Amino acid sequence: MQLAVYLSGEIHTQWRDEIIAGCAQHGLDIVFYSAVTDHDASDAAGDMLGEEEKSFWRDHKSAKVNAIRTKTLIERSDIAIVRFGNKYKQWNAAFDAGYCAALGKPYITLHDEDIIHPLKEVDASALAWATTTDQVIEILKYVGQNTL
Amino acid sequence: MQLAVYLSGEIHTQWRDEIIAGCAQHGLDIVFYSAVTDHDASDAAGDMLGEEEKSFWRDHKSAKVNAIRTKTLIERSDIAIVRFGNKYKQWNAAFDAGYCAALGKPYITLHDEDIIHPLKEVDASALAWATTTDQVIEILKYVGQNTL
Amino acid sequence: MQLAVYLSGEIHTQWRDEIIAGCAQHGLDIVFYSAVTDHDASDAAGDMLGEEEKSFWRDHKSAKVNAIRTKTLIERSDIAIVRFGNKYKQWNAAFDAGYCAALGKPYITLHDEDIIHPLKEVDASALAWATTTDQVIEILKYVGQNTL
Amino acid sequence: MQLAVYLSGEIHTQWRDEIIAGCAQHGLDIVFYSAVTDHDASDAAGDMLGEEEKSFWRDHKSAKVNAIRTKTLIERSDIAIVRFGNKYKQWNAAFDAGYCAALGKPYITLHDEDIIHPLKEVDASALAWATTTDQVIEILKYVGQNTL
Amino acid sequence: MQLAVYLSGEIHTQWRDEIIAGCAQHGLDIVFYSAVTDHDASDAAGDMLGEEEKSFWRDHKSAKVNAIRTKTLIERSDIAIVRFGNKYKQWNAAFDAGYCAALGKPYITLHDEDIIHPLKEVDASALAWATTTDQVIEILKYVGQNTL
Amino acid sequence: MQLAVYLSGEIHTQWRDEIIAGCAQHGLDIVFYSAVTDHDASDAAGDMLGEEEKSFWRDHKSAKVNAIRTKTLIERSDIAIVRFGNKYKQWNAAFDAGYCAALGKPYITLHDEDIIHPLKEVDASALAWATTTDQVIEILKYVGQNTL
Amino acid sequence: MQLAVYLSGEIHTQWRDEIIAGCAQHGLDIVFYSAVTDHDASDAAGDMLGEEEKSFWRDHKSAKVNAIRTKTLIERSDIAIVRFGNKYKQWNAAFDAGYCAALGKPYITLHDEDIIHPLKEVDASALAWATTTDQVIEILKYVGQNTL
Amino acid sequence: MQLAVYLSGEIHTQWRDEIIAGCAQHGLDIVFYSAVTDHDASDAAGDMLGEEEKSFWRDHKSAKVNAIRTKTLIERSDIAIVRFGNKYKQWNAAFDAGYCAALGKPYITLHDEDIIHPLKEVDASALAWATTTDQVIEILKYVGQNTL
Repeated sequence: MQLAVYLSGEIHTQWRDEIIAGCAQHGLDIVFYSAVTDHDASDAAGDMLGEEEKSFWRDHKSAKVNAIRTKTLIERSDIAIVRFGNKYKQWNAAFDAGYCAALGKPYITLHDEDIIHPLKEVDASALAWATTTDQVIEILKYVGQNTL
Repeated sequence: MQLAVYLSGEIHTQWRDEIIAGCAQHGLDIVFYSAVTDHDASDAAGDMLGEEEKSFWRDHKSAKVNAIRTKTLIERSDIAIVRFGNKYKQWNAAFDAGYCAALGKPYITLHDEDIIHPLKEVDASALAWATTTDQVIEILKYVGQNTL
Repeated sequence: MQLAVYLSGEIHTQWRDEIIAGCAQHGLDIVFYSAVTDHDASDAAGDMLGEEEKSFWRDHKSAKVNAIRTKTLIERSDIAIVRFGNKYKQWNAAFDAGYCAALGKPYITLHDEDIIHPLKEVDASALAWATTTDQVIEILKYVGQNTL
Repeated sequence: MQLAVYLSGEIHTQWRDEIIAGCAQHGLDIVFYSAVTDHDASDAAGDMLGEEEKSFWRDHKSAKVNAIRTKTLIERSDIAIVRFGNKYKQWNAAFDAGYCAALGKPYITLHDEDIIHPLKEVDASALAWATTTDQVIEILKYVGQNTL
Repeated sequence: MQLAVYLSGEIHTQWRDEIIAGCAQHGLDIVFYSAVTDHDASDAAGDMLGEEEKSFWRDHKSAKVNAIRTKTLIERSDIAIVRFGNKYKQWNAAFDAGYCAALGKPYITLHDEDIIHPLKEVDASALAWATTTDQVIEILKYVGQNTL
Repeated sequence: MQLAVYLSGEIHTQWRDEIIAGCAQHGLDIVFYSAVTDHDASDAAGDMLGEEEKSFWRDHKSAKVNAIRTKTLIERSDIAIVRFGNKYKQWNAAFDAGYCAALGKPYITLHDEDIIHPLKEVDASALAWATTTDQVIEILKYVGQNTL
Repeated sequence: MQLAVYLSGEIHTQWRDEIIAGCAQHGLDIVFYSAVTDHDASDAAGDMLGEEEKSFWRDHKSAKVNAIRTKTLIERSDIAIVRFGNKYKQWNAAFDAGYCAALGKPYITLHDEDIIHPLKEVDASALAWATTTDQVIEILKYVGQNTL
Repeated sequence: MQLAVYLSGEIHTQWRDEIIAGCAQHGLDIVFYSAVTDHDASDAAGDMLGEEEKSFWRDHKSAKVNAIRTKTLIERSDIAIVRFGNKYKQWNAAFDAGYCAALGKPYITLHDEDIIHPLKEVDASALAWATTTDQVIEILKYVGQNTL
């Protein structure tokens, strides 16, 4: 049974690669999607539409071009993994989680114990909270198994 | 024309009071809703359901009791105002914004210029970005006017 | 702020009366709805449509007449309380919970500790699990408060 | 014409195997899905996320990991078969039925005559009530036929 | 508890009046809606938009003006009563039933025994089949009762 | 571009065969679906579930087994063709049209001029009215063309 | 029976006033909504959010503040009247019509005969085409009548 | 990752061909859909259904046959490109944009700077505004990239 999994959030560590590699090792049939994780490319996503003097509008145009991607990909996915690192604001990850919650799309959070408190609303709508990529891989293995 | 407006986000400044007072001064017919902003009360919202040793579960229970409120109130509202302060993580505010975006519910962000960049995805789906409560009041006055 | 609350499940104890009385004592502004709890009346709800020899069809007709009520009332409600006693099968209560889950309607379960295990799927989609009617009253008091 | 069929409920008899084998004998083009029916594996589905002292939380985590699977599978299915045995509580099966009812997804119940009465609300929304797996196979054969 | 009930179908007998009078006698709090039952007025509903030489277009325009009403009224109603007489084609009544079925809106059919067979698909999605207006009144009395 | 087309209504003439053959001659890439058109088989669709003394319940069970098929097939289709002959009541065809209308699924009616008036509500929501199968084939050829 | 009617489109003639006055003369119980029709006020709707050098962004901000109003008002309305004059582009009116069409909200177009051709797609989804405000008033009178 | 892209609007220039050719050059995996762009064929789309004396009804029938296509194609698409030329009214393009907006389907506008003002409401709901087909190709290249 093929699953489509959206990987949302933190872009400064290798968590996406770990999950993809781990699932490949287990031979899981999963299509992974993600926002563009190349920070500069993502920030420049709207630059082809012309220069802006105000940073707000440059950001606005890039965020909207990125939204075409993420909206399409989240809706195609069965499950989202939403990763929060300890350092950054990552409001886009929390936004994706709220978006999934309203659509009734299952998501799993991935974050350390020391940010449990500020993430309690995000975790309250999640179907699992993991602290390691191995745990996420285990869940995906369990979910994707063909039991019949 | 009566509007229902949900006030989401930061709880350490007086922005809610300013908006409510300003709208009252203009005689606007608005019902305001909000999450519980008493920090301790909100954190203890699930305590009546029994003690927990792990902080995750205490937070989980409280966040879910709060979710009964916020889910009901957001769905009753015509518009949400989502406020981000400069200091805190406020992932619940970004979560609410994503939730509104998926429902197609209009929302306005309220934040300073120095956090434009990390909020660009949240602003991309907003129908307005304000930096002062006066601007929010002006928008609500404009939106709520009876033009016929 | 007025809430509409649907009371689903067990009909052999006084839990509905306790919740209604407790909320009244706190002066909460709540409209309560419920399936018909008079067992004989509920079983006979379809009898005006003619006699049936097979018990299946008598039950079928009564269950559908009751469904007109419950469907309408659940959709009008903001929150459902789903009560499971220890003795009976109460599949209709679990059915109501699944119905609420698919609609995204918040519900609270009310049951003793010794049936946690068979109710784990029902509890997994609930926003709270209570063991006493006092806890339910506390939650409704918290949820229904006007904080602004 | 390919059908996707979700098999929900009782795990202590061979009804799933009978239906799958019977449909195979008739050469029907059906993809079958099911919750994990290995009782211990299902109960332990959340254990990879860490130990819990309270049984409620262990169950809660496992039920939610299972919910990722069942939610995804029910939504992919054209039809659900919901099986109730005579002995167990099987509230998850009634929950699945209510979930299907709210989604407008057709389901068939499979149970003996002596539990007609407690299942009347679940049967009221079903599109068929069968007492044997042969009947279910006949229905699937009829439904899946290519008539043009 | 107030109900809104839509009365669809046959216009040549007094069934609407009987139901309304009967519910009034029982003091039921029901708002009744109906398509325009004055046959000539209904056929002429689009005539204010200009003459047509082809009867198809005259009918088309009138049917669409009527559709503005019926669509609005069905969506406002909690329950529809769909009446089929023995003589006429009444395809609009069957259309309304299909419309309600797709919306998940409960409806009750009202027709004699001798047209059971051609109405079997319409009855299959109904929540009750009545043969007399007294039965319909009894159902509405049962459904509208305040049990708490 | 492949289309899925549901053929609903009259079963006593060869209109389905004509449309299918005509589309094949034009090489159109269309998957056709239909209710079971073998009248006896359709009436007996629920007989495997046990005998009934009352004709209502026999019809009811068969109509519901058929509903599993038609509901699934209509939802898979891009377009429905709804055929009304001059003789029969065909309330199921009008029901299907209403069902499509509520889902926003495009449908085409196929009927003679002398039943325009009783079908005016059904035609009002249709995207085309055809009187011959050749016209339907032409529409499907036009709709299914790949223009880029 | 109260109706809510949204008046969309042309702002250079008195059509809104005529409809409102005509409905008042007939004593119809209608709440009318409209976009802000003061051209300068509408263009300046976002100016309180700060100046823009590029006209695109000034327009963008104002259009979004107006969208908060129009989105809320269209969703509250039962019916929209969409008016096209002969001179202007009025793409916002066609946009509103498409928005209503996708929501399944009934709308009536109001325009002269000489723009039938470019409006054919907009008229195809409308439930009526009127050329005078008197015709619109007649329709609203017919639709809003209480027939029981 | 395959995308489906709907090309809506102006038919008098080669913008569709340019986008398709440009995406082919970049090897993008995109299925393009469009309304029928042969002006005469589109105007005659309903002529097979019989002649009309009034131009309104000829247009009406053709527009509805075209609507079967466009409705189906827009719903199959991930993204729409909506093109406005400087000369024509193109109300169908604005209608498509409104339709996409209500469905939450991402769309990109393509138009020159001198029609920014009349298109401000259409641009307000778009996720990008492009002035050249090269920009559109760049966006599609960015959106369709497989980043994992």
